[in-house]
This record gives sequence, structure tokens and C-alpha cells, in this order.
Amino acid sequence: MLASELARELEGRLEGDDREITAVAPLDSAGADDLSYLSSAKYSGQMETTGAGSVLVDDQFKGETAASLIRVSNPYAALRRSLEMLYPPDELEAGIHPTALIHASVAPGEGVSIGPYTAIDADVTIGDGTVIGAGVCVGRGVRIGAGCTIHSGVVIYRDCVLGDRVELLANAVIGSDGFGHSREGGVYLKMPQVGRVVLEDDVLVGACSTIDRATFGETRVEAGTKIDNLVMIAHNCVIGPNTAVAGQTGMAGSTIVGGEVQIGGQVGFSGHITIGDRSIIAAQSGVIGDIPEGAYYFGYPARPQKEWMSMLAGLRRLPDLRARVRELEKRLAELEDRAE
Amino acid sequence: MLASELARELEGRLEGDDREITAVAPLDSAGADDLSYLSSAKYSGQMETTGAGSVLVDDQFKGETAASLIRVSNPYAALRRSLEMLYPPDELEAGIHPTALIHASVAPGEGVSIGPYTAIDADVTIGDGTVIGAGVCVGRGVRIGAGCTIHSGVVIYRDCVLGDRVELLANAVIGSDGFGHSREGGVYLKMPQVGRVVLEDDVLVGACSTIDRATFGETRVEAGTKIDNLVMIAHNCVIGPNTAVAGQTGMAGSTIVGGEVQIGGQVGFSGHITIGDRSIIAAQSGVIGDIPEGAYYFGYPARPQKEWMSMLAGLRRLPDLRARVRELEKRLAELEDRAE
Amino acid sequence: MLASELARELEGRLEGDDREITAVAPLDSAGADDLSYLSSAKYSGQMETTGAGSVLVDDQFKGETAASLIRVSNPYAALRRSLEMLYPPDELEAGIHPTALIHASVAPGEGVSIGPYTAIDADVTIGDGTVIGAGVCVGRGVRIGAGCTIHSGVVIYRDCVLGDRVELLANAVIGSDGFGHSREGGVYLKMPQVGRVVLEDDVLVGACSTIDRATFGETRVEAGTKIDNLVMIAHNCVIGPNTAVAGQTGMAGSTIVGGEVQIGGQVGFSGHITIGDRSIIAAQSGVIGDIPEGAYYFGYPARPQKEWMSMLAGLRRLPDLRARVRELEKRLAELEDRAE
Repeated sequence: MLASELARELEGRLEGDDREITAVAPLDSAGADDLSYLSSAKYSGQMETTGAGSVLVDDQFKGETAASLIRVSNPYAALRRSLEMLYPPDELEAGIHPTALIHASVAPGEGVSIGPYTAIDADVTIGDGTVIGAGVCVGRGVRIGAGCTIHSGVVIYRDCVLGDRVELLANAVIGSDGFGHSREGGVYLKMPQVGRVVLEDDVLVGACSTIDRATFGETRVEAGTKIDNLVMIAHNCVIGPNTAVAGQTGMAGSTIVGGEVQIGGQVGFSGHITIGDRSIIAAQSGVIGDIPEGAYYFGYPARPQKEWMSMLAGLRRLPDLRARVRELEKRLAELEDRAE
Repeated sequence: MLASELARELEGRLEGDDREITAVAPLDSAGADDLSYLSSAKYSGQMETTGAGSVLVDDQFKGETAASLIRVSNPYAALRRSLEMLYPPDELEAGIHPTALIHASVAPGEGVSIGPYTAIDADVTIGDGTVIGAGVCVGRGVRIGAGCTIHSGVVIYRDCVLGDRVELLANAVIGSDGFGHSREGGVYLKMPQVGRVVLEDDVLVGACSTIDRATFGETRVEAGTKIDNLVMIAHNCVIGPNTAVAGQTGMAGSTIVGGEVQIGGQVGFSGHITIGDRSIIAAQSGVIGDIPEGAYYFGYPARPQKEWMSMLAGLRRLPDLRARVRELEKRLAELEDRAE
Repeated sequence: MLASELARELEGRLEGDDREITAVAPLDSAGADDLSYLSSAKYSGQMETTGAGSVLVDDQFKGETAASLIRVSNPYAALRRSLEMLYPPDELEAGIHPTALIHASVAPGEGVSIGPYTAIDADVTIGDGTVIGAGVCVGRGVRIGAGCTIHSGVVIYRDCVLGDRVELLANAVIGSDGFGHSREGGVYLKMPQVGRVVLEDDVLVGACSTIDRATFGETRVEAGTKIDNLVMIAHNCVIGPNTAVAGQTGMAGSTIVGGEVQIGGQVGFSGHITIGDRSIIAAQSGVIGDIPEGAYYFGYPARPQKEWMSMLAGLRRLPDLRARVRELEKRLAELEDRAE
């Protein structure tokens, strides 16, 4: 593909020579046939030394470079489209592997692929074009929409519901029993977990993440929400649409999260709290109360970001404060002596 | 089932009309045929608006409601029994799937179920009534008691021991090698891990949790202890009976935890420490020393809860303290000027 | 094996009677035929009461004991060699299980073992002596070196590369898609993830850990680095050689970690930062900036260890500081009164 063709596809502007593009590579290792991109001003120094033939940049970049530039309004979105064009997905051999065990009551949709050693239980529905990997277990009565991708090793427990274009990465677990026990006579007795999990359209769940079924009712992840690896969503949580949850975050039971929320990695939410739409929760925060719409929280216990920043600044200036108090004590004692 | 019948089974008291109950649902979405329950006074406002036909409550509740009430001493325990009665588990098709690979030396007990594509190695014992899911791997010499439930995708390494009624949720790993390396000549050489894992009666291990075998000797989880999802228990840990460990908590090697301990989510324990019986460790704590019996600890490094609370309160009042010091400095300077 | 033979093999010195050694056990449960070892001075009190016949100690130990001593310069390294000698690994039945599905384009090396229900896709290479467990999925074009051990339930996505003697514990996931989405028109569109993962020689990855493929280019773990359970390595991270990463740690995208770094458990790294060689990061730290070579950091945000220690000490003395300020205010007011 030529840089000029790519610029046209991206509705961008080519500055410099027209070059052949065969791959995408980082600025610091790209060669003459590679497309690269400037992700932030922090890396603009690399523009002077990069060997990349062509680079996606926004209107802000003014520096020196030997590379041809493709100016676009949103380089990250342009990168996404470039990758799609330069790396078209393999044609999968559609079809159902002869070792896939599919219950007689199941009639997969058109163009469905099911990998080896996968087991699909009774009364499961599978929409058109859905791809299921190897060694997957799908429990009784599960409903899977169209265009989904269920990677190898995933376990989906009975009665869970997946919308269209849902993607579950390897070894994720959907619909395991919630962690609920009633303490009676000094021992824990398991609370039956009879609810289900609903993942709406375009939800993504990362590798080795676990989403527990509701005790009763539903654990629900709304449309377009993306969940990273090793995340734990407990029973009866509800996460609104188009929210992003980074890796290793955990939500205790009945955490209610709004839409378009951004949650960093390793955040913990105590249960029975409500997180407002469009809020931002910084990595490693511990959230133990409600958070209003649009707020930016961090720390443990999580507080508005400005409040924590001033607390941390105060903490760093504590030695100075203690020195000032010591000085005051000395001067005051002198004054008292003179006053005697 | 009628509300009056349920009240009798629960040794509770029906107040209001007798109604048919067909399902259990949350207060905010329940209908006339649903049983709901009031989990805490925090939600008692929902009692005025709920559409639930019947609600489990304790003796404290005095509010307005259109629902019939079933008064019980412990609503959570009553909910557990109600779920068991209203949602009896499916009759599983007992039996061993023809694709299950079971070594010739293994003689499963009575009524054992083993799912498709599961592999059971030599010299494994499996007690009566145990259910093993699909795609499970059980290593040589493993002993599994009666009435256990081993969900799909679980891996149990050789020589581990499970008591009766142990439950392992999907993709959990029991008996993987501990993380032990000897640094010699600038490189890490793996310490052989020749011990085992013992899970006593009624232990539960959540989805994608990992419990490492001992370097030598045992990693042991005692009877009745419940472990949530994505928890890591390292080599040579011992956890006492009837302890609860919430999600994403991790214990480094040789952590010794007592019985009836309550451990929140995302807690970390450095190794070679001892945690007393009946202690409580708040979520996200970092525990780097011993904790006495019955103590309530939190924070990092974990300290008695009251101590951390007063430290945090002091931190929040730091700007005020600094203002007071500034004021003192000003007043003292004036006084000094006058003294000259 | 006799204690005298073992002492000779370890280039150590036997003090006391020569005894038969048949197993290794901890000081507090070892018997007359067991070898034990004194891991640190903290446990030297156990030397007086231990029933162990023989104990590995270093030159520092001077206490009372009934056990025979094997003096060595490095007891931990000696323990490693003793375990290797006393617990030789089982002779595995080498060979490829008849249910293993191996694409016709794959020609495994000499002495390769592949377990039941494992699926190996097209164009995979497998070096001599590599052992692959049950229920493993290996994607198209993956290259696996010699002497590797891939445990049951592992998923390796297409095009990833493993050097020699790499070990992957159960249910680990290598090469899943990185968590990258471009926000366009209010929704997240998935960034194609077309890079790969490279694990160099002697890398170990723990159970249920996930290492994401690069968006483009490589996610790379260099030779000899050991990664514990439930760790998450995001896209485009690079970890240098002989680094140790403890359990449940997470690295966001493009974290660059040096060689011989020691990283505690539950640490979080924000992306696009650089961690110097031989640095040490304490457990539960949150690292949001670069760390210089050889530094010892902890806390959130991570700072030099001494700085945080003095901040924490200041925090603990805050009530005292506040009392001193109150006293100053009182004394100053008295002085002002007298000055009037």
C-alpha cells in the first residue's frame, strides 16, 4: 500500500515522499517500509532519529524528521484503521470440529465455528458467525448472540446470556457461583446462587477474568463495556455501557457502576455502592462509598483526586512542619525567659 | 409454595395475606409471586415501593409495606433455605462420559459423574457422589473425597488431597509448583517443589484461584474455609478452619492463618507471619507482621484499625495544622518585635 | 542416602553421627530419617526441639541441637541440590497421546510428550524433549524451543515464540489480545493486536498468569526471568533478564523493566515507564514514574523507601505534633496577655 493511498483512506494529508508501506512498527525500530505513529508529545524526540518511512501525526507536530508524515485529526483512530487494512484477519476454516460435542438440542447458526474438544450442553443457542475456540465449556441453556468470539479454555456456566459481538478471551469464566455463605452454628453454609450473568452487545472480557452469576436476578455488563484480564466481578454487580475496567480490578457483590466510567488497574470496590456515570477512578484505589457523576477519585479510601493530592503534599512537607514547630518552641521559651 | 408453608418451614411468622411464591427476586424488581428479603436497614426505604408479594424480614423492621412479611430471626439464613427449597438442583445425568480418560488403576466411587474430555491419571481415588466437570485434569495419586464438585477446566496436580464435599470452581489450579528459586551465579535455579496441597472437608476454592504445593511438607486449608476467585495461596501456607478469604487476596509463602478469620479482598500477606484466630483484615491491607487473635487490622503496613483511622484523620486535618503553625509564627514574631 | 554422602555431594562438612536420609521435612515436623534446613536465624530456636536427624546449616549457627549438622556455605542452594537428589523426577511415559490433535504440518522434535486433548495448530515447531500437558491449546505458527514444560490448560496464541527450557504453569495464557481500544463516536473500537509475545530461554510463568501480545512489535520477557501466579503483563511490555515478579503484580502497556529487578507481590505499574536494572520494588507499591538503577522503592505513588518510611513515621507522630501546637498556642496566648 502507498502512503498516499493510506492518507486518502484516513482522510488525512501526506507531507513528504510517497512511500510503500508493508507493516506497522514502533518509532524506535521501524524501517523504511514501515508505518509508525507518534502517540504523544513525550516521544516527539524520536521523530528526529526514527527510521520509519511514514508516520501518523496530528496537527500539533512541528519537529524535524526524515519520515513522510500523514497528518490526521486522531492518530490513534487512524492507527486502528491502518492496522485493520494492513493486517486483515485470517480466513478461518469455518465449521465445527468433529471432536466438538454438541448436544442434539442445539442448532448453531450460519457460519459458526466450533473448535476441538469443546463441549456445548443442552438448549444452548449460538448466533450466526460466532467463533468458539478449543476446549471451551458451555453450560445448559446458555444463549450466545451473533458474531461473538469465545476463545479457548473459556467456561460459561448454565443460563448465562451473551449479546452480539461479545468477545471472551482465553480461560475467562462467566457465571461461576457468587461467593455467598450464611454463617450458621459457626460454619459457613453456601447460599444457592440461582441467578445468571448477562453480557450485552459488544462487551469484551479479558483472559482469566471471572464474572459471577447473581445470587438471584442478574449480574449485568451493559453494551460496549470492555473488561481487561484477571478482573473479578462479583454477584449482582451491574456495570453501565461503554465503561472500561483495567486489569486486576475487583468488585464486591452488588457494586453498581455507571456508563462511560474509566476504572484503572487493581482498583477494589466494596459492595453495595454506586459509581456515577463518566467518573474516573485511578489505579489501585479502594472505593468504599458512592462516587458522584463525573468525579475523579483516587486513594484508599478513595476521595476526590485534589483532596488526596493535597493530603500527600502535606505528608511530604511534614518534616518541614515539625522543624517549624521545634523552632517555635525554642523561640517561645526564650521569650518566656525574658518575660520572667 | 404458599408463604404460610414457607414460614412454617423457616420457623417464622407470616404477617399479611397468604400468597403463592414461585421465585426469589430483589426488592426493586420483584413481583407479586416473588419472595424478596430485606438485607439491611439501609434498604428499608424500598419496602414502601416494592412489588414483592412476600418479604423475609427480622424483628427490627417496623416500616410501611404492601408486602406480606415473613418474620424470622435470621433473614439471610432463611433466604438460604428458601433458595434451596424453591430452586432444587437439577438431577444430573450421573455417569462417566465416554470421552473421559480414566487410568485403568482408578475405580471411581458410587454415583460419580465425570464430564467430557476430562483426564484422570494413575492411582487417583474418587469418593462416592463426586461430580467432575468437563476438561478437568487430575494428576497421578490425587485423592478426592466423597460429595466433591470439581468444575470444568480445573487442574489438580499430582499427590494433592481433597476431603469430602470440597468444591473447586472453574479454571482453579491446585498444587502448581511454588515460586521458589535459588539464586546461584547470577541466575535463578528452580527449587524442586516436592510437597503437596491438602484441602480439608467443605473447603471451597473460587474460579481461577491458585494454591501452590509445598516445597516439602504441605500447603493446607483446613475444614470449612471458603476462598473466593483469583486468590493466590503460595507454598507452605496453612489456613485454619472456617476462615473466609475474599477475591484477589494473595498470601506469600509460609503465611500461617488461624481459624474463623475474615479476610477482605485484595489483601496481601508477606510470608513467614502468623495471623491469629478470629482476626479481621480489611480489604486491600498489606500485612507484613503477625496479627494477634481477634484483632481488627487494616492499611499498609497493616495496623490496628483505630490507629490507622486516627492517622487518616490527622492527615485530613494537616492543612488546618499548617495554618495554625503559620499563625503562631506571625504572632510570635510580633511579640518578639515588641519585646525588642 | 547417608548424611556423609550428602555432605560430600554438597561440598559441606558433617558434624555429628552419620545418619540415613530418606526425605526432606520442616524442622517442626521432621523425624530421624529426615533432612531439614535452617532457613534463617529467626527459626534457630527450633533447632533445640527438632526431631530431624540431619539439618543443613551455615557457618553462623552455634546453638544446641540433637541433630547432626551438615555445614554448607549456602543452605538454600544445598537444599535445592538435596531435593533434586532425594526426589528424582518420575520417568514420564514419553510420547504423544492418541487424542492429541496435531496439525499435519507439525513435526515435533525427539522425545516430545503431548498429553490428551491437547490441540496444536498449523506450522507450530516443538523442540526436543519438550513436555506438553493435557488440554493445552497452541495456536498457528507458535515456536516452542527444546526442554520446555507446558502444563495442562495453558493457551498459547498464534505466532508467539518460546525459547528453550521455558515453563508455563497450568491455565496460563500467552499472547491474548492487548487491552487497546480507540474511543470514537462515544464507543470503544478494538485496536487490532497484531504483534506477538517472545519468552526467552529459562523463563517461567505461573498459573493463571496472562501475558498479552503487542499491539504491533513484541511483548518480550528476557532470559531467566521468573513470573509468579496471577500476574498480568500487558501489551508491549519488556522485562529484562533474571528479574523476579511475585504474584498478582500487574504491568500496564509499554512498561519497560530492567534486568535483575526484584518485584514484590500485588505491585502495579502504570504504562510507558522505565524501571532500572537491579532495582527493588516492595509489595503493593504503585509505580507511576521511572525508577533509577539499583533503587529501592515502595508505596503509592512509589518513592524511595527511606522517604516513605520517614513519611509514615511522621504520620504516626502527628497526634504528638498536634498536641505540641496546642500547647504552643496556649503558652503564646498567656504571653500575649501579659504583654498587654
